[in-house]
Amino acid sequence: MKRIILLGSTGSIGVNTLDVAAKFPDRFKVVALAAGRNGDRLEEQIRLFRPRMAALMNEEAAAKLRDRCRGLDVAIVSGMEGMNQVATHPEGDLVVAAIVGAAGLVPTLSAIRAGKPIALANKETMVMAGQLVTEEAKCRRVTIFPVDSEHSAIFQSMEGHRRENIRKLILTASGGPLLKTPLSGMRRVTPKRALKHPNWKMGAKITIDSATLMNKGLEVIEARWLFDIPPSRIEVLIHPQSVIHSMVEYVDGSVIAQLGIPDMRGPLSYALSYPDRLALELPPLDLSEIGRLTFHLPDKKRFPCLDYAYEAIQAGGILPTVLNAANEEAVGAFLSERIGFLDIGRVIRKTMDASHPREPKTLEDILEADASARRQAKKIMAEVV
Amino acid sequence: MKRIILLGSTGSIGVNTLDVAAKFPDRFKVVALAAGRNGDRLEEQIRLFRPRMAALMNEEAAAKLRDRCRGLDVAIVSGMEGMNQVATHPEGDLVVAAIVGAAGLVPTLSAIRAGKPIALANKETMVMAGQLVTEEAKCRRVTIFPVDSEHSAIFQSMEGHRRENIRKLILTASGGPLLKTPLSGMRRVTPKRALKHPNWKMGAKITIDSATLMNKGLEVIEARWLFDIPPSRIEVLIHPQSVIHSMVEYVDGSVIAQLGIPDMRGPLSYALSYPDRLALELPPLDLSEIGRLTFHLPDKKRFPCLDYAYEAIQAGGILPTVLNAANEEAVGAFLSERIGFLDIGRVIRKTMDASHPREPKTLEDILEADASARRQAKKIMAEVV
Repeated sequence: MKRIILLGSTGSIGVNTLDVAAKFPDRFKVVALAAGRNGDRLEEQIRLFRPRMAALMNEEAAAKLRDRCRGLDVAIVSGMEGMNQVATHPEGDLVVAAIVGAAGLVPTLSAIRAGKPIALANKETMVMAGQLVTEEAKCRRVTIFPVDSEHSAIFQSMEGHRRENIRKLILTASGGPLLKTPLSGMRRVTPKRALKHPNWKMGAKITIDSATLMNKGLEVIEARWLFDIPPSRIEVLIHPQSVIHSMVEYVDGSVIAQLGIPDMRGPLSYALSYPDRLALELPPLDLSEIGRLTFHLPDKKRFPCLDYAYEAIQAGGILPTVLNAANEEAVGAFLSERIGFLDIGRVIRKTMDASHPREPKTLEDILEADASARRQAKKIMAEVV
Repeated sequence: MKRIILLGSTGSIGVNTLDVAAKFPDRFKVVALAAGRNGDRLEEQIRLFRPRMAALMNEEAAAKLRDRCRGLDVAIVSGMEGMNQVATHPEGDLVVAAIVGAAGLVPTLSAIRAGKPIALANKETMVMAGQLVTEEAKCRRVTIFPVDSEHSAIFQSMEGHRRENIRKLILTASGGPLLKTPLSGMRRVTPKRALKHPNWKMGAKITIDSATLMNKGLEVIEARWLFDIPPSRIEVLIHPQSVIHSMVEYVDGSVIAQLGIPDMRGPLSYALSYPDRLALELPPLDLSEIGRLTFHLPDKKRFPCLDYAYEAIQAGGILPTVLNAANEEAVGAFLSERIGFLDIGRVIRKTMDASHPREPKTLEDILEADASARRQAKKIMAEVV
């Protein structure tokens, strides 16, 4: 029986995690849940899964929830302290880190410092603080299992093969909702249009990241840290059908790939049950039905964010943190229709250009760089756009 | 330093093996060679690789070779006894079994009985005597590394994953030289036409097997024994580009695949250097250049041999031996233009129908079944065709 701590239980990955846990009650017990502000859904989850502890980041929502859960055997905690209490709950064997965006960093790092294995769905943790997080994980011998389908594919394609034989990683990208939109049409793209992902059902922030290809850029940075491979040996390949989830090329020219239908429960369940696999009863991949898989290189002109991410990870220091902060602010502004689609890349470019290179040493340095980049991005959006 | 015994050194796989060995002289030493009748090429190989022992199956050719190699420090042996002497040479660490057809069975089995790990390129060994060979290998703790690109792909896609999590094996097939030839055109297909394989450069027998899809049928039988998976869980998928060399589907729906350019040195070198990989300096697989991969189910009407192979392995007993013997005789007759292309399947069908089911217990039983099926196939060809 594996006892699960779930950070970000009301989001897309969180709900899928509980779905898998519910299907295999003899394998998993949910001991603690944390969410941002969605008290209604968290209450439902508490009543269904009966965790020992549940946290809401939002204090007001937590107070309400505490009221409604009176009589249930659950400790309701709140704020960042509450998130950390859930993340380090002594009964947890595995922490699913599925909080969206920068907010996931602190509790994930707390869980690592408490020596807990991580199923990592929150790529921003690695983008903002990859070096710090991987160093902490290494010295505490904490394993980080990727949940992102691409990184899970790479993880699965590396299992049983020698690390020193790897030549490169090939991250596949669907190309997102705007793969075929010409540059001239991108200016007028609405949030509604950009939220229509052809293959994957995901949250709003990651779907917009997919539309700009920044998602793939963030994944390159995440892969760099998760697998300790320099970015010069990580390639991106557009593969609109999202059937091959990613690949590893070895020195003998052999390429190992992981394929599957686009359902997050696949990679998620592998992170939960590794090294075993769960009989999920998803529809099988039928390649004769699909008929063909296509591949081409990304169009860097229409999708400049991918290059910005390579630039940030190659430069290192705080630049990936700045990239991530500017991207979160810009995506938020686009979703609330304060800036246009093409402005997302522009805001990131200008925020990166305005940042002063430095090496963050501590979590505090990173949080400071994040906050400062957000201020800068907001300033740029107020001035120019 | 791994000391190699090479059975079938003058054939396509044999030459590729020596090519790999020559590129990595610090890793491999060739200690013994065996071939059928090509004394000229074997002499060249002896002068280049300086083995301790070399065998020719053909006694006359061996006598000539013995003359020409006087003064060299090499023992020239001959006939089946000579083949077995090479196969069991005490200095060999790994036996590459690359003799074409049924002739490979006896020396391969001798090598297994001598406790030597096998790199198996001779699929007929498994087709004729899969149960006997795998049982002998098991009780002597001998590992059999597949050299066939499909089985190497499956082997590589199973490494690091739990056997009990496997749902099925998916063998890909290029579809061979006649993939697009309509049934009406198949009657008139010449050996020259059928020998034009679109992707792989291989010997004549295997190329004709590829044209009839019998090659894939033999591979299903080989996979059944190599990986101990029932044939009902082995599928064949036509994939004309031969980029995905085969796949393994797991219970969670995840599919692990091995991809590469069509060059036998890839799978071959993996069998030679496992678990390490050799930096072969082959051109890398470029999926953006290839652009697309296609897949469809095999056409059983035009390619009945595939079903005959499933029928043979499902029935078991001597039927796979009979299938293989009839196929070898029919392919030989087709190559020397004694029968037409569509007759190959007919001869196999009739030979199978004429055989009496029985369980072979020993090598002798298998060799007897093989000889008797060959007589039957010849009789059928003399009578009907």
